[in-house]
Amino acid sequence: MALPRFNRLVRFVPRSDTAKILIGQPVSQHIDVGLALSQGADVQAEVFSGNSVLAPGEATGKIEAISRVLSPLASSEVGTIRCIGLNYKQHAEEVKLDIPTVPTVFLKPNTALGDPWPAPTVLPKLSQIDDCADYEAELAVIIGKSAKNVTEAEAMEYVLGYSAANDISSRTSQFNTSQWCFSKGFDGSCPLGPTVVSKSLIPDPSKLHIRGLKNGKVLQVCGLDDLIFSIPKIVSFLSQSSTLPAGTVIITGTPAGVGAGRSPKVTLKQGDTYSVELQPFIGTLINVFENEI
Amino acid sequence: MALPRFNRLVRFVPRSDTAKILIGQPVSQHIDVGLALSQGADVQAEVFSGNSVLAPGEATGKIEAISRVLSPLASSEVGTIRCIGLNYKQHAEEVKLDIPTVPTVFLKPNTALGDPWPAPTVLPKLSQIDDCADYEAELAVIIGKSAKNVTEAEAMEYVLGYSAANDISSRTSQFNTSQWCFSKGFDGSCPLGPTVVSKSLIPDPSKLHIRGLKNGKVLQVCGLDDLIFSIPKIVSFLSQSSTLPAGTVIITGTPAGVGAGRSPKVTLKQGDTYSVELQPFIGTLINVFENEI
Repeated sequence: MALPRFNRLVRFVPRSDTAKILIGQPVSQHIDVGLALSQGADVQAEVFSGNSVLAPGEATGKIEAISRVLSPLASSEVGTIRCIGLNYKQHAEEVKLDIPTVPTVFLKPNTALGDPWPAPTVLPKLSQIDDCADYEAELAVIIGKSAKNVTEAEAMEYVLGYSAANDISSRTSQFNTSQWCFSKGFDGSCPLGPTVVSKSLIPDPSKLHIRGLKNGKVLQVCGLDDLIFSIPKIVSFLSQSSTLPAGTVIITGTPAGVGAGRSPKVTLKQGDTYSVELQPFIGTLINVFENEI
Repeated sequence: MALPRFNRLVRFVPRSDTAKILIGQPVSQHIDVGLALSQGADVQAEVFSGNSVLAPGEATGKIEAISRVLSPLASSEVGTIRCIGLNYKQHAEEVKLDIPTVPTVFLKPNTALGDPWPAPTVLPKLSQIDDCADYEAELAVIIGKSAKNVTEAEAMEYVLGYSAANDISSRTSQFNTSQWCFSKGFDGSCPLGPTVVSKSLIPDPSKLHIRGLKNGKVLQVCGLDDLIFSIPKIVSFLSQSSTLPAGTVIITGTPAGVGAGRSPKVTLKQGDTYSVELQPFIGTLINVFENEI
């Protein structure tokens, strides 16, 4: 089964009818969809039939202008989000933890899934109290067909493609207990998108580069060759005795430069923008933060 | 909105047509459904219309004999399973950890949901390698309507009822990293059921008693008055900035007596039975273990 029949897909609300949600492919092969939209540019998409990036139908030949991009998968499609902690060597050093010998896995509920800008990204009340909201730029891997007990050699057969994610964290809650799920699981704490790039465009994900920018200033920058556990290793590991249904989102860890590791520390506040940029092909996930009231 | 219109519900396959799944209420108000079925007794249920314990329709007046009980909720209904660690004082002492001051939260994917006996409960390969599979008898709370930012005083309005669960754990994997989700998230690692008991039958859950029995021998026994964080406190805490959709399952921690805390340690092996008993009303969740091959 050859999964991807596209290069890059987006789920979006078209300008022509803002009550609709469509699946499409940017007409320009090289446009950074998230960045272009944030700059007010027109972004045109060729519409696919179907209503999920997991099963795009045929290219319809119709072109639509994008009004708003959404998370490429709906929350009903992603199931529980799998997350890898401490997966960049420089980040493990930054937070003064040993390089792990097995992947550190935590989970986010599907209610954590969030859309890219212009949807607001909420800073939960618990993050406001202590001014402890933090960003984590991450590569997301999207599973395309159900995987269980797959080997590293087989793992990539089950991958649909890649996207960008932000593992938004509430540091005070995180360090109150040994477990991270509560502090990283608030509604909207896992924005994703806007594109899903077919794995066929990225034969070697270790050649990707990731950057994280707060209000335009680069705070995270790294090559994916700094990963401790490779993408095939992560997919294989997570699938041991565990079904990863189609639509499963795996976020793969963040590079050095998180706010809590800086001196003085950096936090996210209402009005801040954080951009997660992955090159080539994946482009930029932009989120603008707003206080929960 | 008055949620429960029932005392105890089960989801089951009737003897009359084993291709069907029905929702019903045991005809006998006092029968322990799981225990009675395991002893070969006839258990009759009054059938409700509808196909979910979240929205049982009307009592149809039809009586059916139960062939097999299922997890009361389908895996598509439970979303991500919320779990509280270290919530019994005696258990925190047993594993030599401080009494927590905030709830310790971890998550299981919905793929972890499992049925009661006679469905086999799988011992994952990673638990077999090190003979490290362990049981944890737990009270489960089922959310009946979507809850977010609810106070302790309001929390019980959002609870549908109670059930029994086993937080099956793979101890070697658990202690390989600081995070527990991987080691407690294997397929079938959260058997649930068989009944959902309306909260109206259990006005004060701190008066419940829980026991865990391996092959009939009592290894865990405790009153729910040993809980560090009460049920309303847990529901309120988990709902902070986080939507708990209807169908959310919360497992509330295990009492002292886990296998890893015993000397010599006790583990689960192929052929073993573990029973989680909650009295009054909730009854017994029985699981028989089988090696994953």
